[in-house]
Amino acid sequence: MTDFQVWAAAQQQRIEEALSQMLPQPTVAPQRLHQAMRYVVLGGGKRVRPLLAYAAGELAGADPQRVDAVAAAVELIHAYSLTHDDLPCMDDDSLRRGKPTCHVEYDEATALLVGDGLQALAFQALAGKPLADDCAIQLEMVGLLATASGSRGMVGGQAIDGESVGKALSQPELEFMHIHKTGALIRASVQLGALCGQTLDSAEMERLLHFAKCIGLAFQVVDDILDAESTTATLGKTAGKDAEANKPTYVTILGANQARAFAAELHQDAMHALEPFGDRAGRLRQIADFIVKRQF
Amino acid sequence: MTDFQVWAAAQQQRIEEALSQMLPQPTVAPQRLHQAMRYVVLGGGKRVRPLLAYAAGELAGADPQRVDAVAAAVELIHAYSLTHDDLPCMDDDSLRRGKPTCHVEYDEATALLVGDGLQALAFQALAGKPLADDCAIQLEMVGLLATASGSRGMVGGQAIDGESVGKALSQPELEFMHIHKTGALIRASVQLGALCGQTLDSAEMERLLHFAKCIGLAFQVVDDILDAESTTATLGKTAGKDAEANKPTYVTILGANQARAFAAELHQDAMHALEPFGDRAGRLRQIADFIVKRQF
Repeated sequence: MTDFQVWAAAQQQRIEEALSQMLPQPTVAPQRLHQAMRYVVLGGGKRVRPLLAYAAGELAGADPQRVDAVAAAVELIHAYSLTHDDLPCMDDDSLRRGKPTCHVEYDEATALLVGDGLQALAFQALAGKPLADDCAIQLEMVGLLATASGSRGMVGGQAIDGESVGKALSQPELEFMHIHKTGALIRASVQLGALCGQTLDSAEMERLLHFAKCIGLAFQVVDDILDAESTTATLGKTAGKDAEANKPTYVTILGANQARAFAAELHQDAMHALEPFGDRAGRLRQIADFIVKRQF
Repeated sequence: MTDFQVWAAAQQQRIEEALSQMLPQPTVAPQRLHQAMRYVVLGGGKRVRPLLAYAAGELAGADPQRVDAVAAAVELIHAYSLTHDDLPCMDDDSLRRGKPTCHVEYDEATALLVGDGLQALAFQALAGKPLADDCAIQLEMVGLLATASGSRGMVGGQAIDGESVGKALSQPELEFMHIHKTGALIRASVQLGALCGQTLDSAEMERLLHFAKCIGLAFQVVDDILDAESTTATLGKTAGKDAEANKPTYVTILGANQARAFAAELHQDAMHALEPFGDRAGRLRQIADFIVKRQF
């Protein structure tokens, strides 16, 4: 295993434990709902957002126990969004992370409530214990996550995505959608991780956010390439869905090769943003590499 | 108009303005989503939860501008829950507050995202500006709203409610469901309003919470009576839905007359809890009266 894989595996174990503690136990009423919430959150996923939070936290010299809470929060928001996104009225997907989706395993009403409950739990995670030296910064974290998750962030991006099916989007329009749908939460993961540590000046935070913007987009470009070229078995989710749903993607707009080149460009841009941080940004660089080179 | 009606109308105007400011303008992208969010929040509803927040704020001598934010937060949570509750996979309702429900007026995917976006906005409202003298109290408010809204509060109650259709519930079981489904957010409305003001000691907060618990339940009992006895035109929502859906209610368990007596008992209990507050609890008493005597 590479040094990154060892580190990532350790963080993934860490976040699994933190999430398991944060989520209500399956014996707490209402039991079925809590079992379903645990079903969608635990035991799967690359945990990219938590990894970004931990890596940004390392850069800012943060106490990892504080970062556990923000890592949990961003992963809970992510898990809730997947649960709602898989619903029949949205992407109508039956497979996710190699398992039946929540509404298939349980039922639609439960999946709806699971998503709702997970979103509330994310904010509970941010308010539960001191996460920043200055309590005002912790309130800022709440505001940041709310904005990144909401109608001017992730939910807004999902709305734009829904309206774009069957349309010929330009690259700027596709980018606008992704910046909201996935970029906002990825940027928030980096920001929240960093805010757990020592205060970065605004130029440093800008660099981190630019890094996050680049790798967030790169993540989507690679996602589009994998959907077009990989298999369901490898991905753990249904491949070929984009073409089937007539969705505009980086592959339909640029072609797979140009898309790959674009991802490489974004990767370089991301690395450049991290240069002034030196060794402190080591893990963030490794994550950028992972995002661009991954096969699932 | 009674003194209460004048006050309530003024608070309703206040909260309408605060909500209108808080919600993204309909011209902000994604426009349709923002229009739909405004559609479900503005222009309707009794605003009971904001009224409770303002009244509790008055008791605690809070700055009304601070209470605007928490009143908005609880109403946004309430509006999101109604939007999701009306969905086909839940209560499948086509009418609410005298208008077509969100998924009917727009579409199901939009209604799903509207609810999701409104929940995030509620937490944004609590983090936007100073609401308490001690920033730690404001973080506590975030945690309170998250817990009240989540799987151990409102969302949990909705899950219990969904599992109870067609079942013969005992009164304690029905109460357990209501305490979560509607009681938690009603208690939070009172708590958050009070936390905007001067610190109440724990005995005082306990009394307020007991008051909120009693009138929260009374609200539900009256809701059940009205569903069984009133008309769609008067209620602004489809009457007779409980019987049609074979839902256990206070009317099916106690009969309408016993249910009315129970509501009166809860009302008395609520008033008793407020006695030590004297005049400071004037508005809260008026709300309790309204809840029990209302016809819609």
